[in-house]
Amino acid sequence: MARTLYHGPLAHALAPAALDALPAALLAVDDTGRIAWLDTHVAPSPDARRAAAAHHGWDVDDPLLRLVLPRPGQFLVPGLVDTHTHAPQFPNIASGGQYELLDWLSNVTFPREARFAHPAYARKTYAAVVDRIISLGTTTCCYYGTLHLEATKILADIVHHRGQRAFVGKCNMDRNCAPTYQEASAEESLAQTADLVDYIHSLPHPGPPASPRLVHPIITPRFALACTNTLLASLGHLAASHVSPLAIQTHVAENSAEVEFTKQLFPECLSYTHVYDAYGLLGPRTILAHGCLLGNHELELIKERGAGISHCPTSNFNLRSGIANVGKMLDMGIKVGLGTDVSGGFAPSILVAVRDASTASKIISFQKNTAAIARDASAPLPEELIPPPSIAPLPAAEFSEAHLSLATLLYLATLGGASLCSLEDTIGNFLPGKAFDALLVSVRPETGNPCVWWEDEDESKAVTADGLQSMLETFLFAGDDRNIDSVWVQGRLIGGTGQGN
Amino acid sequence: MARTLYHGPLAHALAPAALDALPAALLAVDDTGRIAWLDTHVAPSPDARRAAAAHHGWDVDDPLLRLVLPRPGQFLVPGLVDTHTHAPQFPNIASGGQYELLDWLSNVTFPREARFAHPAYARKTYAAVVDRIISLGTTTCCYYGTLHLEATKILADIVHHRGQRAFVGKCNMDRNCAPTYQEASAEESLAQTADLVDYIHSLPHPGPPASPRLVHPIITPRFALACTNTLLASLGHLAASHVSPLAIQTHVAENSAEVEFTKQLFPECLSYTHVYDAYGLLGPRTILAHGCLLGNHELELIKERGAGISHCPTSNFNLRSGIANVGKMLDMGIKVGLGTDVSGGFAPSILVAVRDASTASKIISFQKNTAAIARDASAPLPEELIPPPSIAPLPAAEFSEAHLSLATLLYLATLGGASLCSLEDTIGNFLPGKAFDALLVSVRPETGNPCVWWEDEDESKAVTADGLQSMLETFLFAGDDRNIDSVWVQGRLIGGTGQGN
Repeated sequence: MARTLYHGPLAHALAPAALDALPAALLAVDDTGRIAWLDTHVAPSPDARRAAAAHHGWDVDDPLLRLVLPRPGQFLVPGLVDTHTHAPQFPNIASGGQYELLDWLSNVTFPREARFAHPAYARKTYAAVVDRIISLGTTTCCYYGTLHLEATKILADIVHHRGQRAFVGKCNMDRNCAPTYQEASAEESLAQTADLVDYIHSLPHPGPPASPRLVHPIITPRFALACTNTLLASLGHLAASHVSPLAIQTHVAENSAEVEFTKQLFPECLSYTHVYDAYGLLGPRTILAHGCLLGNHELELIKERGAGISHCPTSNFNLRSGIANVGKMLDMGIKVGLGTDVSGGFAPSILVAVRDASTASKIISFQKNTAAIARDASAPLPEELIPPPSIAPLPAAEFSEAHLSLATLLYLATLGGASLCSLEDTIGNFLPGKAFDALLVSVRPETGNPCVWWEDEDESKAVTADGLQSMLETFLFAGDDRNIDSVWVQGRLIGGTGQGN
Repeated sequence: MARTLYHGPLAHALAPAALDALPAALLAVDDTGRIAWLDTHVAPSPDARRAAAAHHGWDVDDPLLRLVLPRPGQFLVPGLVDTHTHAPQFPNIASGGQYELLDWLSNVTFPREARFAHPAYARKTYAAVVDRIISLGTTTCCYYGTLHLEATKILADIVHHRGQRAFVGKCNMDRNCAPTYQEASAEESLAQTADLVDYIHSLPHPGPPASPRLVHPIITPRFALACTNTLLASLGHLAASHVSPLAIQTHVAENSAEVEFTKQLFPECLSYTHVYDAYGLLGPRTILAHGCLLGNHELELIKERGAGISHCPTSNFNLRSGIANVGKMLDMGIKVGLGTDVSGGFAPSILVAVRDASTASKIISFQKNTAAIARDASAPLPEELIPPPSIAPLPAAEFSEAHLSLATLLYLATLGGASLCSLEDTIGNFLPGKAFDALLVSVRPETGNPCVWWEDEDESKAVTADGLQSMLETFLFAGDDRNIDSVWVQGRLIGGTGQGN
């Protein structure tokens, strides 16, 4: 792999409220796809670039060095991280919007997923799914497959072949699903999961020798109510039994009927979240999707265990599940990333998740204000509206009192997702030592997206931090796949509209 | 203009909850661009088509007749109606999302609008704006211009030249705006408005003789707080003084600070809505944008006067204004259409307004359920939470108790918008006698939209009403400009990706 020197504007998140917008960064990627060094400001001239590179021992005239010099209106951001999506549900995108969760599973989802019993269907469909997700700028993706072992191996093969960073899991589901679409026994479910884990671990390392693995197995109990206690216990044991413990993904507290049913099935557990904890499935590598209806005790348990939430606002609106208060979670120090949750969510792009996360936070913000106004004018709150006391003292309200800022939205889409995947030391921003997982974004007119504006004087935008933030806001709120010129994972170009250039 | 015969699937709305999905319709457009007749089912064969046409006296072999035979995955829907957008604000799309309404006007909007003092800037910008709106499938658009007479004439010229159906208005604003961006006096504002009205009325009729006018003037007081009482009174008089009274567009009850300020300025009026009524600006041709914070008395006045609401959910979320309860309005028989409200809204496509209208209604739906659960478990409601008594008996809750269905969403985007514009006898669906304002939609793979799925077996979808509804849902929730193959207004092809074919 050629070494690369990128000289131009880049924006990345350093923390939940820290956006770093650098109009003239100089960034070096080594031949293993890692960021060798980053100079935050180098004047945009060949001489300045040459001198700065020489300072790091790099020669810009080396014919083996690839030089990336963006045009006005182009800039670099970290690759997007989708922490929760269902690969087999892509063909159902934007259908069944009339249902809530449990009816939607029966009527829309399970019949579709059952088709992946046929490997030929899986091969054809998953190839298109992965291509589309990459074209939308998702460089790391947490995939739910179906319950089928072979189809899920095929998904892992395709992701591996395409060079995307990913977690791939086979659904575990041995009760309360469709009679024709659930596993025969806990034992079979466990054995096939162990088989998938070994299979993914056996995939050859991509690229040059010593390249890191990009595809990881992930333990994927569909959700508590779809798994017997035996299965949950054995999955917890499997996850912990590996030398480096396995990641885990599942759903939590998405919908009220689901929460009620789960409580009935596990009366011995204090809450839905406590079910996962009881079976060894709640830890620092656990990704919990949704969490719309989590109580304070559950949030505190999640924080204590180091687990985190995949926020899927498009799906939560679409299936009428509720609004997850991620501002409160961030204040508590809980890890939060974004998920598209296709096809509960009708949009496979993390950019749409960004827009809906903004909307969700703005609804919480203006409804809180309305409630505060009503409360000011009223007698003391009636008993049932007083929030239950928290075990821990309430955190400082940096995020939960306001709508999410541009900085926080970028964080959630990149570094927040990376943290949720326990990859915060590997990806999420452009700090030296991390992998170069990145997008070259273009808001130039030739992209053809009619929702993104460009004026002649915009040429100058990229040279100031304010102008760069403005271009970033345009990309996040009005951009689509047409604005993604290049997609790199671990330094390797794997997609984008301009990938042939 | 050639006569046209379309034979294939079409979907249109007949009423707020009546979706008519016809897999094999035969629709005839005459040489004035009107729908001559519509057969709801004709078998998809040349012989059946020939016989059905002959029954109406049409000869399918006439060389002057254009035959449109969609491919599998293509279907016809009525053109989309955007009942509220600001043409000069398009360059600001997706910027300033941190502000609420009044700060957003000062910091983002007024500085941009002031640039339209330069006709050259207006000419260049508005040409691109109108092209983009047409590419997004909007066949009828209610445009706010700036306060500038010449720039607004340029906008009307461009819309007229491009053949879009539209209302074009010059903002009236003679107080409480930026010192550099408001009108010198009520007299000047009125005189320039009268000038614009005459100018638009003088535009030549488009197309063949006796073709109907497509571009109409519209009286556009920015909002009550930006107009002196003198200006409001004279605008009310101007609107009523024409042989056929003029349409009126303005904003109402969008944001709480705006509502408070308006109440202070007009202490003699019972409510914000009553201000417009007092000055003769509330009638059957009045389009009121937003209405997030309307009280019951205001809704009843709007209903009584025959005015209606332009629902702009993307903007209402983005500027943290609130959620307009359009289900309640529909139950009351109030006219409701959709608006993008660029750039308070960050999306210029009515398809996104559809998605956000669905989201808004789903939020109301699940929060109502949560409130109902909480209420069941509680003592009687505290005094301040009991809703104030309504003057009229509450309407049957067909829409306000549930999320908006696919049928209602299509209605809002087409016939609802047409009704709000008092054009329900002219456009909005495919009933004979109406103008052929239509989109040929394609969900086929070659459109290149990665969010729309296509499988080989989907070829058969269009031949059943269920399959057609499923394609319609896909278009509304996952479609973009790439899925709009052809855009017709009054029978004339004015845009679409396949317009050259």
